[in-house]
Amino acid sequence: MSVLVVGTVAFDTIETPFGRAQQTVGGAATYICLAASFYSKKLNLVSVVGDDFPESAINMLKKKSVNIKGLQIKKEEKTFFWSGKYHDNMNSRDTIETRLNVLEGFNPAVPKEYKNAEFLMLGNLMPSIQKQVLGQMKKKPKMIILDTMNFWMDNFMQDLKSSLKEVDLLTINDEEARQLSGEYSLVTAARKILKMGPKYLIIKKGEHGALLFGEKQAFYVPAIPVESVVDPTGAGDSFAGGLIGYLAKTKDTSFENIKRAVVQGTVMASFCVQKFGIEGLVGITQRDIHCRTKELVELVKFAPELK
Amino acid sequence: MSVLVVGTVAFDTIETPFGRAQQTVGGAATYICLAASFYSKKLNLVSVVGDDFPESAINMLKKKSVNIKGLQIKKEEKTFFWSGKYHDNMNSRDTIETRLNVLEGFNPAVPKEYKNAEFLMLGNLMPSIQKQVLGQMKKKPKMIILDTMNFWMDNFMQDLKSSLKEVDLLTINDEEARQLSGEYSLVTAARKILKMGPKYLIIKKGEHGALLFGEKQAFYVPAIPVESVVDPTGAGDSFAGGLIGYLAKTKDTSFENIKRAVVQGTVMASFCVQKFGIEGLVGITQRDIHCRTKELVELVKFAPELK
Repeated sequence: MSVLVVGTVAFDTIETPFGRAQQTVGGAATYICLAASFYSKKLNLVSVVGDDFPESAINMLKKKSVNIKGLQIKKEEKTFFWSGKYHDNMNSRDTIETRLNVLEGFNPAVPKEYKNAEFLMLGNLMPSIQKQVLGQMKKKPKMIILDTMNFWMDNFMQDLKSSLKEVDLLTINDEEARQLSGEYSLVTAARKILKMGPKYLIIKKGEHGALLFGEKQAFYVPAIPVESVVDPTGAGDSFAGGLIGYLAKTKDTSFENIKRAVVQGTVMASFCVQKFGIEGLVGITQRDIHCRTKELVELVKFAPELK
Repeated sequence: MSVLVVGTVAFDTIETPFGRAQQTVGGAATYICLAASFYSKKLNLVSVVGDDFPESAINMLKKKSVNIKGLQIKKEEKTFFWSGKYHDNMNSRDTIETRLNVLEGFNPAVPKEYKNAEFLMLGNLMPSIQKQVLGQMKKKPKMIILDTMNFWMDNFMQDLKSSLKEVDLLTINDEEARQLSGEYSLVTAARKILKMGPKYLIIKKGEHGALLFGEKQAFYVPAIPVESVVDPTGAGDSFAGGLIGYLAKTKDTSFENIKRAVVQGTVMASFCVQKFGIEGLVGITQRDIHCRTKELVELVKFAPELK
């Protein structure tokens, strides 16, 4: 089934204890599309770049069957730029610089043929832009997933809360779940957030895995312990890409299947962090995905002795 | 099978964002014995207290089938005292005060009839004391578990490393695994630590669960998300108690069964954190344990679609 992905396409400069990547291709939508491309060949991208964005990167997306008709290329403007530096423990980072460039005044225009998309992934972006996209859909998608972050909660909470009413699944991290709900306990936080609109909530805990909550169900999946984490940039977006890609492939939005989608998101994130930028997602094969899924299955499996 | 538990019996004064407990009964061995008592009725305690330690607390241990013949009661001396204050996020704490009291110059004496114990739990204590106990055993127990912490690594690394050679299973947290191995990646850290002696390593990650490593296997279990975490004190010791208690009950030290023991440790820790001090462990029933085990089984269960 067709997937519409909305989010940033960007240049990133990343510094981690393991090295530095200068002006490398990144952005939430880039990671989402790359990860989702392993599951779905009907990917449609809505985003914006400047004319400084390399054709090779656009061709790379096309090769991954990403339809780029909705990617605006702004003449004589510059692509969104972010640079950040990770602390030694890789669990936190400082933003060094953000240049919005083309993102300022970005008006997403969903091409006509995408307006019936069955799966909609609203990547981390200004809530008003996410809302604009929701307003352009012709019919309610089978599943709307929204990703957001603390920055938007700090500054545009009302916009965000208004979008949440239309969303099926929200993905945020643990601190953001606490901020959005005003509750410390993640169990209580989840219960409150599920009353704001979403039917499902995924709390991303980085190297500690992810928690999926439904109205009465919960599911936990750990991050796959990999030998070396080189760059966490894009891990959450890769997770989202694996998640929506798998749902679109399997056309099944039951809680049981969302669990499997969360597992595939986890697998994608584990590949992402092993190399700088999008490199971790570029070279992998279906066989790699299969093996790592098996590794995760083994990691959590036990035979309970329940009388 | 019989279990020998060595560790502190103490008074704690604990402050968390949810309240304060003054001069309450605590100590690693207390939590270990209480948690293990739900699985095994052959518990033997080796520890030391002053004559200020309440008889009611000793009777409570006896009622839980803990043999206290190895508990030295020092006349006119004071019980080990610890006080700490947890930060708002409950993930870290400051030690306010430590009064070693009877622990200074503690010479553990393992009663004759415990020297053949099949399961030995060396709770968090000065490595030289743990070593003294190892030296008093008549035959090698079926399973020796050692718990330790960064403080001992900072000050008595050589003693600790020497004991590790005799240990079957080591339990430490993620930061301690990094300190002990000098490796950031937990996978690499585990590999290095398993070369120091232990056949198995458990990395405790608090609210993020626990990782069990064998030579070629790994197992991950999340912490059970409970509505309210009131006091994390003793969670790691309750985990260790559930772990060794279950192993002693089932008499099976295979990797598959250690996984189940890790699950029971996780269940015990989840009860511990819900109330102050040992209160969380005191009121629970076998039915509560069964229900929470089931909850954990449900939390991690998914049907992988593996071709």
